[in-house]
Amino acid sequence: MGMKTPEQYIASLRDGRELFMDGRKIADVTRDPSFRVAIETAARDYDYVNPAHRAIRTYTMENGELGNRLFQIPRNAEELQARVALLRSVSILSATASSLFALLHVKDEIGAVNAQYAKNIERLYQHCRDNDLRIAEVITDAKGDRSRHPAKQDDPDLYLRVVARKPDGIVVRGAKLHITGAALVHELIVLPTKAMGLEEVDYAVAFSVPPATKGVKIVNRSYAHGEMSTFDYPVSGHHNMPEGFVIFDDVFVPWERVFLCGEYQLAGTFAHALGLWERVGSLIFAADRARLMVGAAQLIAEYNGIDKASHVVDKITELIFYAEILRMSLDTAIREYETAPSGMVYPNALAVNVGKYHAASNYHSMVRPLHDISGGLVVTLPVEADYRNPELTPYFEKYLHTKPGVAVEDRMKLYNLIRDISADAYGGWELVTTLQAGGGLTAQKIVSYRTYDLAGAKQEALRAAGIARPAAPQAAAARRA
Amino acid sequence: MGMKTPEQYIASLRDGRELFMDGRKIADVTRDPSFRVAIETAARDYDYVNPAHRAIRTYTMENGELGNRLFQIPRNAEELQARVALLRSVSILSATASSLFALLHVKDEIGAVNAQYAKNIERLYQHCRDNDLRIAEVITDAKGDRSRHPAKQDDPDLYLRVVARKPDGIVVRGAKLHITGAALVHELIVLPTKAMGLEEVDYAVAFSVPPATKGVKIVNRSYAHGEMSTFDYPVSGHHNMPEGFVIFDDVFVPWERVFLCGEYQLAGTFAHALGLWERVGSLIFAADRARLMVGAAQLIAEYNGIDKASHVVDKITELIFYAEILRMSLDTAIREYETAPSGMVYPNALAVNVGKYHAASNYHSMVRPLHDISGGLVVTLPVEADYRNPELTPYFEKYLHTKPGVAVEDRMKLYNLIRDISADAYGGWELVTTLQAGGGLTAQKIVSYRTYDLAGAKQEALRAAGIARPAAPQAAAARRA
Amino acid sequence: MGMKTPEQYIASLRDGRELFMDGRKIADVTRDPSFRVAIETAARDYDYVNPAHRAIRTYTMENGELGNRLFQIPRNAEELQARVALLRSVSILSATASSLFALLHVKDEIGAVNAQYAKNIERLYQHCRDNDLRIAEVITDAKGDRSRHPAKQDDPDLYLRVVARKPDGIVVRGAKLHITGAALVHELIVLPTKAMGLEEVDYAVAFSVPPATKGVKIVNRSYAHGEMSTFDYPVSGHHNMPEGFVIFDDVFVPWERVFLCGEYQLAGTFAHALGLWERVGSLIFAADRARLMVGAAQLIAEYNGIDKASHVVDKITELIFYAEILRMSLDTAIREYETAPSGMVYPNALAVNVGKYHAASNYHSMVRPLHDISGGLVVTLPVEADYRNPELTPYFEKYLHTKPGVAVEDRMKLYNLIRDISADAYGGWELVTTLQAGGGLTAQKIVSYRTYDLAGAKQEALRAAGIARPAAPQAAAARRA
Amino acid sequence: MGMKTPEQYIASLRDGRELFMDGRKIADVTRDPSFRVAIETAARDYDYVNPAHRAIRTYTMENGELGNRLFQIPRNAEELQARVALLRSVSILSATASSLFALLHVKDEIGAVNAQYAKNIERLYQHCRDNDLRIAEVITDAKGDRSRHPAKQDDPDLYLRVVARKPDGIVVRGAKLHITGAALVHELIVLPTKAMGLEEVDYAVAFSVPPATKGVKIVNRSYAHGEMSTFDYPVSGHHNMPEGFVIFDDVFVPWERVFLCGEYQLAGTFAHALGLWERVGSLIFAADRARLMVGAAQLIAEYNGIDKASHVVDKITELIFYAEILRMSLDTAIREYETAPSGMVYPNALAVNVGKYHAASNYHSMVRPLHDISGGLVVTLPVEADYRNPELTPYFEKYLHTKPGVAVEDRMKLYNLIRDISADAYGGWELVTTLQAGGGLTAQKIVSYRTYDLAGAKQEALRAAGIARPAAPQAAAARRA
Repeated sequence: MGMKTPEQYIASLRDGRELFMDGRKIADVTRDPSFRVAIETAARDYDYVNPAHRAIRTYTMENGELGNRLFQIPRNAEELQARVALLRSVSILSATASSLFALLHVKDEIGAVNAQYAKNIERLYQHCRDNDLRIAEVITDAKGDRSRHPAKQDDPDLYLRVVARKPDGIVVRGAKLHITGAALVHELIVLPTKAMGLEEVDYAVAFSVPPATKGVKIVNRSYAHGEMSTFDYPVSGHHNMPEGFVIFDDVFVPWERVFLCGEYQLAGTFAHALGLWERVGSLIFAADRARLMVGAAQLIAEYNGIDKASHVVDKITELIFYAEILRMSLDTAIREYETAPSGMVYPNALAVNVGKYHAASNYHSMVRPLHDISGGLVVTLPVEADYRNPELTPYFEKYLHTKPGVAVEDRMKLYNLIRDISADAYGGWELVTTLQAGGGLTAQKIVSYRTYDLAGAKQEALRAAGIARPAAPQAAAARRA
Repeated sequence: MGMKTPEQYIASLRDGRELFMDGRKIADVTRDPSFRVAIETAARDYDYVNPAHRAIRTYTMENGELGNRLFQIPRNAEELQARVALLRSVSILSATASSLFALLHVKDEIGAVNAQYAKNIERLYQHCRDNDLRIAEVITDAKGDRSRHPAKQDDPDLYLRVVARKPDGIVVRGAKLHITGAALVHELIVLPTKAMGLEEVDYAVAFSVPPATKGVKIVNRSYAHGEMSTFDYPVSGHHNMPEGFVIFDDVFVPWERVFLCGEYQLAGTFAHALGLWERVGSLIFAADRARLMVGAAQLIAEYNGIDKASHVVDKITELIFYAEILRMSLDTAIREYETAPSGMVYPNALAVNVGKYHAASNYHSMVRPLHDISGGLVVTLPVEADYRNPELTPYFEKYLHTKPGVAVEDRMKLYNLIRDISADAYGGWELVTTLQAGGGLTAQKIVSYRTYDLAGAKQEALRAAGIARPAAPQAAAARRA
Repeated sequence: MGMKTPEQYIASLRDGRELFMDGRKIADVTRDPSFRVAIETAARDYDYVNPAHRAIRTYTMENGELGNRLFQIPRNAEELQARVALLRSVSILSATASSLFALLHVKDEIGAVNAQYAKNIERLYQHCRDNDLRIAEVITDAKGDRSRHPAKQDDPDLYLRVVARKPDGIVVRGAKLHITGAALVHELIVLPTKAMGLEEVDYAVAFSVPPATKGVKIVNRSYAHGEMSTFDYPVSGHHNMPEGFVIFDDVFVPWERVFLCGEYQLAGTFAHALGLWERVGSLIFAADRARLMVGAAQLIAEYNGIDKASHVVDKITELIFYAEILRMSLDTAIREYETAPSGMVYPNALAVNVGKYHAASNYHSMVRPLHDISGGLVVTLPVEADYRNPELTPYFEKYLHTKPGVAVEDRMKLYNLIRDISADAYGGWELVTTLQAGGGLTAQKIVSYRTYDLAGAKQEALRAAGIARPAAPQAAAARRA
Repeated sequence: MGMKTPEQYIASLRDGRELFMDGRKIADVTRDPSFRVAIETAARDYDYVNPAHRAIRTYTMENGELGNRLFQIPRNAEELQARVALLRSVSILSATASSLFALLHVKDEIGAVNAQYAKNIERLYQHCRDNDLRIAEVITDAKGDRSRHPAKQDDPDLYLRVVARKPDGIVVRGAKLHITGAALVHELIVLPTKAMGLEEVDYAVAFSVPPATKGVKIVNRSYAHGEMSTFDYPVSGHHNMPEGFVIFDDVFVPWERVFLCGEYQLAGTFAHALGLWERVGSLIFAADRARLMVGAAQLIAEYNGIDKASHVVDKITELIFYAEILRMSLDTAIREYETAPSGMVYPNALAVNVGKYHAASNYHSMVRPLHDISGGLVVTLPVEADYRNPELTPYFEKYLHTKPGVAVEDRMKLYNLIRDISADAYGGWELVTTLQAGGGLTAQKIVSYRTYDLAGAKQEALRAAGIARPAAPQAAAARRA
């Protein structure tokens, strides 16, 4: 018990979990080449030896012991800021711990209905914290026909549901999609994908199970493949994470691991709470990525000798505007934090949603100036193996040279970085997930509209128009309800 | 001496200044109907009686007396924040005091070259502060053919220049354009419009003169006209400000009012310093305007019963994103303030320029959703006089009714607000000046590019690409130089 | 009978029509200064003496006489092209004849339900053609609360309706908004603003009456005012047209002027037919305006000596792209015309809607580069009267000079053109009406979606995906229905 | 001699060409798995047996024989239209024949300087036509430091140049980048990448050589890899084409294959002529791709049951606008064709450039709605092999079901189509090449600005502004020159 080493983490994965990838059933995930980089990625988060990492990744728990800061519940701005620094230091697998925070966020509200649920949430939290576990957020259902409610689908299992209630637990059936890192965590926290109605009591279910639980099967998909040169793939060759298609084939869940079962009015609460923390994670990542894009664009311009051209400076400045707006949104979200009744603090919802929306809605367009500046070599540059071919090396050194101080090898790496993040399989994954993560653009618009001070803005308009009376109070009241 | 009352301000304008408007020479500006609203606008800024205004607009000077906060040199974040609150409380005429701040900003640099200039700046500052004066920033030259330098124009006076140097002062000739409120201030602070070269020593001149100085002639243009119904023009009928075309016809300036005369290397310094404070003013205004647009859009949607329509909520949310990004930029600029060697603090240049650019480059597009939501009545609504015509009033009450709680008169006022700010003469002035104020989009791009931490961003890219060596140091060094 | 002269047209307006403007009841519209320019605008369309105009504006009718081409029903591409040329040659008042074309478009469909209606349409057409009449399209109702149907409003008259049916005609009550030129036409063709349902039989009414009909009152609003210098307002000082708020106060309409009365299923047909012709008119105008914007931008750049600057060329090129896409859309619409069962040809609906949407959705953004290139003088230039003031003329000549070959007066006119069309009251009217004319952006999106060859596009996707079977036929069928 | 069969084409590639890929030297390209799909792609273009293909791909030559229409020189609109149809029917390898057209385009101009060059062009044309050869356009040089001219680089070979002139030919050295399909053609037509100056006579060189010429080495890069499931990669698994990094290591070119050698004033002529035909090809492809995106978006919306949601219809309509504008541009370019002195007709340059620019500048943004509608499965869907795994097939059939009529296999294929074209390695290649092909956005802007009727547009502005005199004629004249 306590914090794990990278080796302990890897060992912990050998627990009989049922995994599939590329058509194969995976015998031992820790020895499978397809998972090698992903596991290294995850294991690096368990490095607390490096002092720089230790400072960021650990904290002193109430009992005086060192714990993973991932489990620290922030109580003030500094702790919130420390959490952001932590999330910037670890991989996406650790970031998915936000589902645990969503549970903590709603614990009191859930507990008011059923105290046992609150206790179960607290127990899970302590279990994860005390054993330094990794968690996947398991949300999106198969969904079937999106125009129909869960209970009206051709197959009742197209949304995950309770198929049996027993004295000691429940049996669930269904499938969950896009579960990042599902194959490599210790807990699958399963939450409803949306608010549920009276006819959907069986779908209002939340719980957590380890991946090795009987009946859980995870089919994996990755933008990466087995052995990738880190020269050719400097980002995705170093860290990647498979997406899991997680099947729950009549999985038994003991009551002490259940957080909701039938209280349909509370189903939406989880989704809402999760959204905020997911978007914080997205915004942190997007702000760093934007800065990286600025740096890559400026660097390739310098390498190629076009950094003085006004149209190039213009495009880099476009990227700077994008990066700075994300950075300011994130800073504002931390600085103007909000406080839950429990004393836990969390980032300002409006700032997070404005920033996340700006990041997501403009990302495709921001890839354009990066491509525009970089030129065709992004996709036509031959691979490392050709460069290393002694018959070819001299030609590469000769013809990919641009100017003194720029090594051909570095220039190639930089082109590979740009391609990897924006014009190859991983780049495609970014394009799609940037839009879809945290609930899609629509979700961010709804939250922004709801949290903005519309009443104040209307008051300004009334004043400017010289209207003495307040406007249509019933309309405003109705909207707020 | 000391702070003026509104009446004292108005009286102070009767000083023989030579003004023109609509083809007429203005005999007494304080009695001319074309200037009535503008003067009322300016005079309201002298209201220190209202306690709310007093709190915002005044401060305790070092000598213990109350002064106009416009002249308080901020020394910390609170004073900077107080300055922003002040600027939100007063008219554009007071806001132009930023030219005085630009002078203070460069005082030490200027003083290092010629101590007398620094003394003159200090003297002007005290004179303005002690007499509660208003100031116009007089920058943009006539410019002639923009492809030619000042000294290469068909007429050497197309940029304002020194035509004679005398023992007691200098004589200047030229014209300055777009001088907001020039007709209604006490000091015209004249600065070079751009950096100057060796051949342009006569153009490197900065000074201040009162408008009533012999040889100064101001031709005025306004988006407003004489008598406007404040029902039909709720904004521009209440406050407007003429633009001055200011002619300097061999104007004599005593040496104690000169801040630069021939030191061409310093000409650019003024323009640069001014830019920051101008853009702060623009950003403050733009953030408030954006919030007003949100309020007006939401209100008209409620009045018309379309506030629940998803495409309407979408468009209002677009305006919210715009408004919040401006608000966050301004807050960041204040919070992350910078400190001059003199101890004066000023807003963060990057945040100001990012915010100002976002405000200006998107403004035309943001008017679109406002128009889209509001509909054709913005421009087709009959005027107040028709509404008040007893023969017509019943028809207006009948046919402009939408729902209980919305008075027809209020709905008309709201439409007038929207038209006034975005689809009439004043709205057009906003469209153009939003782009052009503070130096145009290009200026903001240049400053943003220069102040962004490019070195840090490049470091990230090098790390991500796996490049050990630093990139092309000479290129980076060259760019920074 | 036959084609009118300008003088006959003006005389025809003295028929007792009840008009209001600026709070006044208009005694004789032909002598009222507020209408002077609008009437001159309208009268110019009656110039058939100028050979260039005669060629474009007239055609030989079946009886061998010369008629106004406005009434020619196009039967082939040449006649359609000739119609476009005509519409480019005349004012907006003539362009509103499109409501007559909408009636002709639906005549057969209407006639199938009630042969008398078709006859009435034919009679109106001949009456207008034989007397060279001008027509207003009278569509938009007061509408009240947009979230409620016509029959559910607080006041049943918020949509125009039949209040009595008599042996010889019907009595109607209501108000119609945004009726361009209503005060200056001979026929008000009144059509339902939208499709109507079973509960709205009284609202399913279409008819035509002359403006002088008892009970018709027109309150006018204009972006122009009485006497405008055509130097300062080169466009709106030359042609403008008031918008009418048209009140129908229990107006009697004889049956032979009724085209629909109670057949609610057909109400939407009119709106749909009208939309096409309205958008054609909008697209023609927008294409010409875009070209004008290119010309104005290029010219002001040349006048100011910035036409070689790459960022200026970039912005002008943006305007060129906009202008060319509109031009190509219009040409495509004509070339790929469609043919009604009656043999009348009409522009391709998809091309028209794509072009109109591109014009309207980008217009606000396209004003930006124009303002960006032109600079602040757009709104700060003093007026003609100042220029003509002999005391000032020399200063204008001196300081507004840019380079040889550019007369100051011409440069001022060009600035006035730019302000007038984009940054003054008329420019605001353009901003709003560009969005709202022809049914708003949503209407163009709906038509484009419906008329695009989705089936073909899906077939391509199926082929590319390697899917043998056709996709979800029932879904496709449902959508088409 | 004459048209080849697919088998003859494949055989023709076994000629000793020196190819490299993935670090290996390719012994026999026709048996190498990395080239299998690319060669199949190329060979399919030689199918003239299928009657549908024969109609499109062949024409009757002057001598009465059947020839590949690729070599038909269009003399009228029908032949131009037939060429477009041909280009839509064949792969990118055939499309690169445009370099031959660029040569024909400039033949007379070149011939005026050196008749031999024109003869050489004619000979090459006949050789390619008579042997049904495929051609690569070999343009982009290594370029080195973009801020320096060819002759000022650290290595004089960074632009391809003549290193020796001999009685029977020339010797060239250099490298050319981004040469699509270089490994699989019969002729490499090498042209200067840009205009050249007096100091760059050695760089003003154009010629053609077969890939098997001694000293030519081609290093290949592909977005595709060896064995791809056409289920998982429905587009790139079926057709792909490697990019060649083509090295000219002192290659001897006989005089009869040289089209330019030292006449530096003509170097730019080739680049200009090539640009038009390249952009035509890009526009054809982009228009088809846009239509495919509409189809894929509509289909996935139907499969998932969201095709009635208004925000989905909105996004599809965005794609429709994009697709239609491209289609109309292409049609206009054909219809308003221009005619060279030789009688050869070619597409309208303005329409081509406007369309190409619209295609390229908006492509990144258009991928966004496609991703937005499709959702996360685009990148998280497991691969075919998992689906075919009998242990998993039932789960896929159960959980990827949406509604009757939609086969799970088809839904998977559709998701794979979307990922393949927009969110995977091939999609990344599209993002970059869409921007870079045909010379980048700047090139299209320049041509559009130059070919637009600016004089006419200015005339309109003069007329509207009421300016009698023509504007600054010298400026206009200068620009035209």
